[in-house]
Amino acid sequence: MKKIVTLGEILLRLSPKPGERVHQSNQLLMHYGGAEANVGVALANLGMQVYFVSKVPNNPLGQGAIRHLNANQVHTDYVKKGGERLGTYYMEPGVGGRSTQVIYDRKNSSFTLMEYDEVNFEAIFKDASLFHVSGITPAVSAMMRELTIHALKKAKEKGVLTSFDFNYRSKLWSQEEAGATIKEILPYIDICSCGELDALYLLGLPQAGEGMQQEERLRYYYHSLQSQYPNIKYFTSTFREVISASTNTLQGNYYVDGKLHQSKVYHIDHIVDRVGAGDAFASGILYGIITNISPERTVSFATAAAALKHTIHGDSNTFSAEEITAFANQESGKIVR
Amino acid sequence: MKKIVTLGEILLRLSPKPGERVHQSNQLLMHYGGAEANVGVALANLGMQVYFVSKVPNNPLGQGAIRHLNANQVHTDYVKKGGERLGTYYMEPGVGGRSTQVIYDRKNSSFTLMEYDEVNFEAIFKDASLFHVSGITPAVSAMMRELTIHALKKAKEKGVLTSFDFNYRSKLWSQEEAGATIKEILPYIDICSCGELDALYLLGLPQAGEGMQQEERLRYYYHSLQSQYPNIKYFTSTFREVISASTNTLQGNYYVDGKLHQSKVYHIDHIVDRVGAGDAFASGILYGIITNISPERTVSFATAAAALKHTIHGDSNTFSAEEITAFANQESGKIVR
Amino acid sequence: MKKIVTLGEILLRLSPKPGERVHQSNQLLMHYGGAEANVGVALANLGMQVYFVSKVPNNPLGQGAIRHLNANQVHTDYVKKGGERLGTYYMEPGVGGRSTQVIYDRKNSSFTLMEYDEVNFEAIFKDASLFHVSGITPAVSAMMRELTIHALKKAKEKGVLTSFDFNYRSKLWSQEEAGATIKEILPYIDICSCGELDALYLLGLPQAGEGMQQEERLRYYYHSLQSQYPNIKYFTSTFREVISASTNTLQGNYYVDGKLHQSKVYHIDHIVDRVGAGDAFASGILYGIITNISPERTVSFATAAAALKHTIHGDSNTFSAEEITAFANQESGKIVR
Amino acid sequence: MKKIVTLGEILLRLSPKPGERVHQSNQLLMHYGGAEANVGVALANLGMQVYFVSKVPNNPLGQGAIRHLNANQVHTDYVKKGGERLGTYYMEPGVGGRSTQVIYDRKNSSFTLMEYDEVNFEAIFKDASLFHVSGITPAVSAMMRELTIHALKKAKEKGVLTSFDFNYRSKLWSQEEAGATIKEILPYIDICSCGELDALYLLGLPQAGEGMQQEERLRYYYHSLQSQYPNIKYFTSTFREVISASTNTLQGNYYVDGKLHQSKVYHIDHIVDRVGAGDAFASGILYGIITNISPERTVSFATAAAALKHTIHGDSNTFSAEEITAFANQESGKIVR
Amino acid sequence: MKKIVTLGEILLRLSPKPGERVHQSNQLLMHYGGAEANVGVALANLGMQVYFVSKVPNNPLGQGAIRHLNANQVHTDYVKKGGERLGTYYMEPGVGGRSTQVIYDRKNSSFTLMEYDEVNFEAIFKDASLFHVSGITPAVSAMMRELTIHALKKAKEKGVLTSFDFNYRSKLWSQEEAGATIKEILPYIDICSCGELDALYLLGLPQAGEGMQQEERLRYYYHSLQSQYPNIKYFTSTFREVISASTNTLQGNYYVDGKLHQSKVYHIDHIVDRVGAGDAFASGILYGIITNISPERTVSFATAAAALKHTIHGDSNTFSAEEITAFANQESGKIVR
Amino acid sequence: MKKIVTLGEILLRLSPKPGERVHQSNQLLMHYGGAEANVGVALANLGMQVYFVSKVPNNPLGQGAIRHLNANQVHTDYVKKGGERLGTYYMEPGVGGRSTQVIYDRKNSSFTLMEYDEVNFEAIFKDASLFHVSGITPAVSAMMRELTIHALKKAKEKGVLTSFDFNYRSKLWSQEEAGATIKEILPYIDICSCGELDALYLLGLPQAGEGMQQEERLRYYYHSLQSQYPNIKYFTSTFREVISASTNTLQGNYYVDGKLHQSKVYHIDHIVDRVGAGDAFASGILYGIITNISPERTVSFATAAAALKHTIHGDSNTFSAEEITAFANQESGKIVR
Repeated sequence: MKKIVTLGEILLRLSPKPGERVHQSNQLLMHYGGAEANVGVALANLGMQVYFVSKVPNNPLGQGAIRHLNANQVHTDYVKKGGERLGTYYMEPGVGGRSTQVIYDRKNSSFTLMEYDEVNFEAIFKDASLFHVSGITPAVSAMMRELTIHALKKAKEKGVLTSFDFNYRSKLWSQEEAGATIKEILPYIDICSCGELDALYLLGLPQAGEGMQQEERLRYYYHSLQSQYPNIKYFTSTFREVISASTNTLQGNYYVDGKLHQSKVYHIDHIVDRVGAGDAFASGILYGIITNISPERTVSFATAAAALKHTIHGDSNTFSAEEITAFANQESGKIVR
Repeated sequence: MKKIVTLGEILLRLSPKPGERVHQSNQLLMHYGGAEANVGVALANLGMQVYFVSKVPNNPLGQGAIRHLNANQVHTDYVKKGGERLGTYYMEPGVGGRSTQVIYDRKNSSFTLMEYDEVNFEAIFKDASLFHVSGITPAVSAMMRELTIHALKKAKEKGVLTSFDFNYRSKLWSQEEAGATIKEILPYIDICSCGELDALYLLGLPQAGEGMQQEERLRYYYHSLQSQYPNIKYFTSTFREVISASTNTLQGNYYVDGKLHQSKVYHIDHIVDRVGAGDAFASGILYGIITNISPERTVSFATAAAALKHTIHGDSNTFSAEEITAFANQESGKIVR
Repeated sequence: MKKIVTLGEILLRLSPKPGERVHQSNQLLMHYGGAEANVGVALANLGMQVYFVSKVPNNPLGQGAIRHLNANQVHTDYVKKGGERLGTYYMEPGVGGRSTQVIYDRKNSSFTLMEYDEVNFEAIFKDASLFHVSGITPAVSAMMRELTIHALKKAKEKGVLTSFDFNYRSKLWSQEEAGATIKEILPYIDICSCGELDALYLLGLPQAGEGMQQEERLRYYYHSLQSQYPNIKYFTSTFREVISASTNTLQGNYYVDGKLHQSKVYHIDHIVDRVGAGDAFASGILYGIITNISPERTVSFATAAAALKHTIHGDSNTFSAEEITAFANQESGKIVR
Repeated sequence: MKKIVTLGEILLRLSPKPGERVHQSNQLLMHYGGAEANVGVALANLGMQVYFVSKVPNNPLGQGAIRHLNANQVHTDYVKKGGERLGTYYMEPGVGGRSTQVIYDRKNSSFTLMEYDEVNFEAIFKDASLFHVSGITPAVSAMMRELTIHALKKAKEKGVLTSFDFNYRSKLWSQEEAGATIKEILPYIDICSCGELDALYLLGLPQAGEGMQQEERLRYYYHSLQSQYPNIKYFTSTFREVISASTNTLQGNYYVDGKLHQSKVYHIDHIVDRVGAGDAFASGILYGIITNISPERTVSFATAAAALKHTIHGDSNTFSAEEITAFANQESGKIVR
Repeated sequence: MKKIVTLGEILLRLSPKPGERVHQSNQLLMHYGGAEANVGVALANLGMQVYFVSKVPNNPLGQGAIRHLNANQVHTDYVKKGGERLGTYYMEPGVGGRSTQVIYDRKNSSFTLMEYDEVNFEAIFKDASLFHVSGITPAVSAMMRELTIHALKKAKEKGVLTSFDFNYRSKLWSQEEAGATIKEILPYIDICSCGELDALYLLGLPQAGEGMQQEERLRYYYHSLQSQYPNIKYFTSTFREVISASTNTLQGNYYVDGKLHQSKVYHIDHIVDRVGAGDAFASGILYGIITNISPERTVSFATAAAALKHTIHGDSNTFSAEEITAFANQESGKIVR
Repeated sequence: MKKIVTLGEILLRLSPKPGERVHQSNQLLMHYGGAEANVGVALANLGMQVYFVSKVPNNPLGQGAIRHLNANQVHTDYVKKGGERLGTYYMEPGVGGRSTQVIYDRKNSSFTLMEYDEVNFEAIFKDASLFHVSGITPAVSAMMRELTIHALKKAKEKGVLTSFDFNYRSKLWSQEEAGATIKEILPYIDICSCGELDALYLLGLPQAGEGMQQEERLRYYYHSLQSQYPNIKYFTSTFREVISASTNTLQGNYYVDGKLHQSKVYHIDHIVDRVGAGDAFASGILYGIITNISPERTVSFATAAAALKHTIHGDSNTFSAEEITAFANQESGKIVR
């Protein structure tokens, strides 16, 4: 089995119990996560051989992050130890009409301050089949921006499939900064996860005609993007309607060979924790591509993975391929006994 | 007040908190339960004098099971102590679209290996008015199959009313095995809890005509069964629609004197724990029969009991008759203050 | 900034976790609350300078109540220490169709037995702009009834705006007793929170004509009341539909200058804890009056505050004005990151 | 097996976790206990048939108390339901040099206000062999003082062995009040648990001569008491040295036929919860008397029971006779595996 | 009552439960603390009017810190809101032979980056009687070093008593840096908390003669220091012997008018949490000075306060003066009931 | 780095919190452990490349065991999935004088029923330097007895160093059975962990002369054993004195080249969890042998590792070599900050 490589920051997440607020709490639950780490963890739980590239401090929190990855069978040979701190964020979980709040405390983390030459992508991409990174990684520092582009070029040189998820975070960079960087990145990408708003506001595509349905608009944007970046073979995104913090709908989109494949629309109620659902979706798409399943089944699998993620605490999707497939096929939530 | 007797296995249930998975957990909640124990506990909470017949190991887990029964005022004079282990199961509670998963670890339990002559039904049924057992008990071992039939015969000899709940568990026996045993059992039964699928797949009744409504079909099956087993005076079941692990609908059915009585349809949302709801329903029916309330009120009471069970953790329904009646009559969930 | 004064009892609330019942619990969560304390806490979190007038025992539970108030920046200079016990109540939280149950254990509390001359309202109302009290305070004892009326008269003497919330509790007094006292109170009130049932059953207003809509009826009652008590400038109430303990709808009403202003209707699902929502609403109205915002925005703000309260545990609304305004304006529960 | 009867109040105990203080806590652990209830629970765990006479409110807290008793197989046929509240106390557990603090909130409880004719001791003492009560019961109210004396007289009439534990609580009555009542009680007692300070300050015995050792002094007091009350056949007490809240020494004393039998001195470190240790000791003595074991073994057993109690949370000693005997004989705390 | 002012950083402390390690944990307890905040909190619990000068971010963690201070009745009028983050540290609590480990993550905190002119000491010291600061404050940044000296000068100008605790932290600055700064500070100090090692390694005093007892040596150092800094009227320190993380001895030293007063030696076993014990001691000394109690009683009170702190979780000593005095006088850890 | 291989069963351990008893608990903490798994985990935390050979069921509990191993960087390539159940045990933790109780529920586990040919030791021992197994493995079944001996022979064939720890468990086999099997095993062993009682009761060595000191006796037994089994190069054991479940002393013994090396005697108080301490000791000895450190330092390191284990919950020693060395050298439990 060939290696899958993801590059990114792994953060400590600290969150009170649902129904409690950070400023009134006296204890916090710990989870470790980060977009690319989550994709790696999900793929490892799907049976893939995953290597995560990152840097964590050589202290108990860095060790905790590594333990988390190892518990999920993600290889940490390329997780360097050093620097001063683990990026951290506090999450106050939303319930009903109240939104989830995120307080970042991630500046000056070991990963953010990682040096260009601490990573040897030549070695890393040996025997690799896929490389995944998201827009969060180039956003954290100028060095990381450079490193991300370098890694993608190197991956292409070595014949490794590349995957990029826009993952735009307005607290990390402006739309202009993000757009400029992503435009540099896209020429090296095979699999691209971006949505309508990304195309419009980050890449500056001309707005779709009025009166177009959501689906038509997406086709239009993907078509335009593919004209500009013919190297991109797969586009993917989700339609999410946020009825409340506890109730969402979710539909997966997967555009390949000029055709848009869509999953059924999940009505997700009683949401436990939605963080990481996008990463679960990405992992499902990558799983489908690597294992060569049909676009229909791929987007169905990926969306089922994302929907399942909403039912468990933490950033990580730890469901097996069998569990996800069964969920994609099930009608309802019967007790299995 | 005359004794009510139930016979069955009491198990230790270990479950993580909602939103957590067994393989990632570091602590488990303990509950004790089992179909016939649950019926006994519920009837004791309704004020009945209940005796449970079973066997548990003479160790802290067996003692824990006995403490649970005693706390609910179930008499444990007929719970033998000995054997090697308490049957156990792990329950990963479902949320939203994700189903509850059950992992059985119940083989070789003290109850399963109980010997035929460890129980003296002659003494047990002295001054008894009702005997209840479910299809789980004969399923756990050949000895238990024999003992169940023996107990039912003895009960009939002593003029005790008998109740049998199919409770088919595919992880314990096949449809063929179950059908064969249950056919031996039914001639000794007064109150029978079984549904359409039971009639069809376990008893092999000819399928109801196409185009029949669910309700009509049920009447058809109960009518057929009563022709075959004229000794059965009461049939009962529920219609449950599983929209998700958190949202179900539930309606109670009660067939007596050739007439089907149905409760209103409960729309049960925000389910806390659905395990034991069927046992709560059974206890409500038995309560109605023993206390001589009308079929309409009996099925209404039983379904209310079952609906309430969904709102609390654990297998046991600990609501009083007053609470259940108030719930059956209420319009909504106001604060009472 | 001028002082806001509230007078009332602060209670210890002890509640099991959701899904658990008091008689089966082995641990209880502690919260401190009480109608007027809650209004004070909410107003302090909105940036007001609040003084609470009360009495608590000079023991760790009294200290706990004071710590709670201070943590929320409510001034406790007028909270006397003495007497024998802190009023207590046990709350079994409802879920789904099962209602929340309240067990009061508040008799003989320090507050209930507070003496008339323990409070110097002359000093308390110095530099005060607003005084709020609810119908619970005069209900707890004859002395408190007298003290409440005395306080209101004193407030009017000192030119302090007065606010009264009916808050009828049938476990504390009969409709007749409540009506008689409230009629004595109303002539001293500027801001009055009462609903249709209060007008009908406590004040004995003639029933609104058949066929009137809920909204028309409310206008009719407020109009009648204002004719009787022309001193009352503001009337306020909420329309709440209790679909289940977990799902309610809520709409705020605010009647001023002969015009009824209404908020949008919130559909509140996944309710965490509804206790204190009425107090959150009251605090929002008072905030609007003090800060001179328009009636439309006031009722919108107040109802948003009440809706938010449902999403957190405890009696206290600790949201800031910015958070409430953002919530009032938001469309859905997106993650903010 | 003949009945053992104990009469007393059962209280709800609410305590924060060790190392936390009540006024800073946000959750409390629940235990049920009370001197005579604890003795009953301990004796039931030793295999005796115990009946508890008391009164609790007919609400979830009263039910919780009954569940606790039933879980321990104490019969609650004579526990009346009614009245207004369950007596409660808050316990802030000491650690190291910091003492445990108790805050009583037990006034006006259902038990305290129980009426004389609510209890039929004629029926209760039928087939009883032993009646135990402590000085706390007559201390809670004048009615209870009367009822206690009545019960003791009745017990003697019916040939029931009587046991009385001084259990002086300065928060409930003065030394004078206690002394006067106890002097009325002692003529009806067979088994008396009191110590040197009780003899001196409550009964007013002349002080033992200077220079006497602790042991000699105890012999002197017991000798004097037996001269005054020749009906008392057994005297019992413990010597406890409180080095800190976490470290005590404990030795049991048992005076019978003019001879003082003493257990070894336990050095008890790492105390988990010392509440109920005296009751555990009393239950051990009563067990020894009922089962006719020698005075030496009785005091050894009772002191072992008391020492074990220190190692578990809650008021109740739930160890079996085998466990206590093994502990009395063991040398050290090896793992048994 | 005149104001007491303390200046310093308040940090978030995150710690696993005792017996667990940070890298294996999945939840962390939250406490807020910091040397000068702790002294302020302790003094406020002793009834003093305390103002804390600091800066915290305007986010839920900053609010949490303010809530903590307010709950303890520390005035937060001079706690500025702004900057980027709250200084944080992770504490892995030691047990037995294993030491407590601290992982600092406090760089770039709002306090560290506070600007010189954000604080108006002219206003702050109006009506103040005492100003306390420790060596941690000047250690966190050059700006804070400057601000500390400025504050001390201003305090002396305004006739405010000044207190300085060396509190040397090797993770924050070197002995040379600390020594240089402290030498600048000492001329403005009235009350100085430092020990033998501070005198030797930070101030470079000539080593005491060989063969001197610990007590003699301390007298020698204090005498030398007072010769150099005649402005210092009070010296204070503790002798602590660390037998294990769970067992220490502690003795307080207080040097005034050329005479050394010492408390008894506490043997502190079963330590719950020793963090903040030094601050509790400092608060006790300051309390003695402000309330004019004798040096003997002052050092006895301060050491009792410090010993008590070891018995509760968190950095804050929340004992009242009565509790501390009772503890100082008590013999052992009896239950008070 | 060469592979280290351990063979054994990994069990689920379920335990209530300290101070609680299994039969009264309502939740249990989960840990995974087993003698050889623990040695593997400890060695991996010391930086070794460890492979564990075992079998677990293919269910969430088996996955949980694998996650535990992976989190600690133990390779699970040779952990087979299949069979019916994970061996389980319940541990009621002792405190003070009360011993820890273990309830085994490990029969019919996947490991116990593993077949001879499921393991390919030829492949496993490729590039291996060390193989460790304990007496528990051959005790669980006849098949495992055979497999253990086979593995040891194979290891010797491949030039792999072998280590055997007697670990006698009376609940698994008799002294005779154990002795017979161990005698077959010893000829293949290089490193042997056994104590005086093992030599005497399992191997039947003639008793050491009266009057010999403990140390002399140990030398005598090791000398005798080495005469019989000259292949054994290293003997090791600990002297443990169990003062109570919370207080033990511990000294390590290491006999090599005819010389007994002993560590200092640790006085271990405030024990958190002693399970796994012997495995921690074994891992320390193996670490010393592999990394070629002197016998003196090896036994000092191993005993420090064992002492540290007592301070954390769970079976696993997760301390690094640096932490253990620092502990071995430290004087006391200071806070490091």
